[in-house]
Amino acid sequence: MSQTWWLEACRPVDHTLREQALERQQQLTKPAGSLGRLEQIAVQLAGLQGQLKPSLAKVHIAIFAGDHGVVAEGISAYPQTVTGQMLQNFVGGGAAISVLARQLDARLEVVDLGTIDPALSLPGVLHLRVGAGTANFARTAAMTPEQALQALQGGRESALRAAAAGSQLFIGGEMGIGNTTAASALACALLGCPAIELSGPGTGLDAAGVRHKAQVIEQALLLHGTLVDDPFKALLCVGGFEIAALVGAYLGCAQEGVVVLVDGFICTVAALVAVRLNPACRDWLLFGHRGAEPGHRRVLAELGAEPVLELGLRLGEGSGAALAVPVLRLACDLHGQMATFAEAAVADRPT
Amino acid sequence: MSQTWWLEACRPVDHTLREQALERQQQLTKPAGSLGRLEQIAVQLAGLQGQLKPSLAKVHIAIFAGDHGVVAEGISAYPQTVTGQMLQNFVGGGAAISVLARQLDARLEVVDLGTIDPALSLPGVLHLRVGAGTANFARTAAMTPEQALQALQGGRESALRAAAAGSQLFIGGEMGIGNTTAASALACALLGCPAIELSGPGTGLDAAGVRHKAQVIEQALLLHGTLVDDPFKALLCVGGFEIAALVGAYLGCAQEGVVVLVDGFICTVAALVAVRLNPACRDWLLFGHRGAEPGHRRVLAELGAEPVLELGLRLGEGSGAALAVPVLRLACDLHGQMATFAEAAVADRPT
Repeated sequence: MSQTWWLEACRPVDHTLREQALERQQQLTKPAGSLGRLEQIAVQLAGLQGQLKPSLAKVHIAIFAGDHGVVAEGISAYPQTVTGQMLQNFVGGGAAISVLARQLDARLEVVDLGTIDPALSLPGVLHLRVGAGTANFARTAAMTPEQALQALQGGRESALRAAAAGSQLFIGGEMGIGNTTAASALACALLGCPAIELSGPGTGLDAAGVRHKAQVIEQALLLHGTLVDDPFKALLCVGGFEIAALVGAYLGCAQEGVVVLVDGFICTVAALVAVRLNPACRDWLLFGHRGAEPGHRRVLAELGAEPVLELGLRLGEGSGAALAVPVLRLACDLHGQMATFAEAAVADRPT
Repeated sequence: MSQTWWLEACRPVDHTLREQALERQQQLTKPAGSLGRLEQIAVQLAGLQGQLKPSLAKVHIAIFAGDHGVVAEGISAYPQTVTGQMLQNFVGGGAAISVLARQLDARLEVVDLGTIDPALSLPGVLHLRVGAGTANFARTAAMTPEQALQALQGGRESALRAAAAGSQLFIGGEMGIGNTTAASALACALLGCPAIELSGPGTGLDAAGVRHKAQVIEQALLLHGTLVDDPFKALLCVGGFEIAALVGAYLGCAQEGVVVLVDGFICTVAALVAVRLNPACRDWLLFGHRGAEPGHRRVLAELGAEPVLELGLRLGEGSGAALAVPVLRLACDLHGQMATFAEAAVADRPT
């Protein structure tokens, strides 16, 4: 592989099919525009899939996990051992995303980029062993350039597997105690904004915990210097292995022509990094859920993204995106199966 | 039947099961509260269904249709013939709700309360023939007390059929050219607010059309006098047959113990009438979708209702509620199938 494979071209949108799908929407037995967002979604998917009647039958969910050295600064309410325990729960079928994947008839892939236990070996988990968690980015770069490349490539390989399996939709999820801190730091680095604006409670910090987290991030950003124009360097200085894998997966999907449904705050920050690395990938990104983490709204706005759902989730694991899948599927069903005015002999013009 | 059957008691919520479901939520392998609205929905359904693990496998959708005499005032962008044509489309499988019902594996029932063609007879449609559309409420009461009772009873019978079939969720939909005007008038009558605040474009009026519609409503409210404390009289003065049927269906469901998922603006106004007639029915009402019609937000606020989705729909037919069904089902699946901390051996306490 090229060391900068992510700069290669993304699959172009099929504008002809997009226009044809838009015309079809105007002929369906409903007042024009009355299906709101569902019409836009179906038309967008038609252009991306190059199909007049798009489909999301085959969904690929990849959960990327990794540990974070910055947990040493006391920025999480949970111990790092939970990352490995949850990997077991993902493949065991008891985690939220396991239940959702089963109900959606989606393929679920669990990729361990590197947890604090380097010997962890769980049946059904792909262990990539990029490192025993990242280094503490409050003291040093979270990862080496080699580790960042490895993690990006790990995500890309998920995208390639999804494409090879004929997947019509890719969802990336994440698990990693401490990763809202890494995501907030990364977003601050790329947006050039103060840490307190993008720091939130994560899985359960109180107000004092959030202030401390913001201070840790603010000091780390001083340590690493300006990163606003160098997304790769920002990723390796303050990111995480699983975040880098998400970035690689999104870019790989856009290059392979697999539609992506982005999950919550951490995934949206990964999407921001991907778009900064290769802006053309933005076309391939749909957004599933606006989460409760305060920074999410800001990063979504930066990307001009309007998620399908807003249900107050703050779990991660790809759960918010997975919940939006049935809505997207129904948008496709309505687009593909509704009768036209001509077929149904319904008057289609206002008096 | 009693002439005021709707005053009879609604099924009480099972608070014991509700508490047990809440306890179960605290034990599932996720940070407390991290599934947001989905947790509240599952707990609420447990209390209503009296089941620790509620289910929405069996869904009953009833579409109520009727024509509106007030269309003579030029308040709709579509001709009244569309109501009957759409009835054909509902049973023919080409309408939005037909597609949604099929995909959700829901039972779809189409009930014609009375369109402008009194001889209309369509296979698969239940024709109740309450009248050849309502009278023009800009000139006289929309319906007689007998017609209002018939339409309420028509809706109640749908609820009874749903209950008899073991349905776990009831969705009422509506179709009737002119019915956003009736719904706006009814909401204004019950909330005592100016017509312009609750009048919107419906299926496609322009700004001048909306102003005219508001004037028609304002004059009708002057004609009929104060209705704010008499929901039954408000319903017969400015309502519609299909709106009355929705009211009857919601009240019947609450009495039979079938959870209701309320659709858009018109259905929410019917829910307001139902709650004014028998406040205890409120417990049984969940709300599927916040629509684009401006009055919807106001009526939802009056009911303290927070819909699951907001996708800019303004179609009716029960479509917004139907779209929320998969989200509610996934809330039940997560609640019922996720592992507990003990089962999965995951650390469940913050450090």
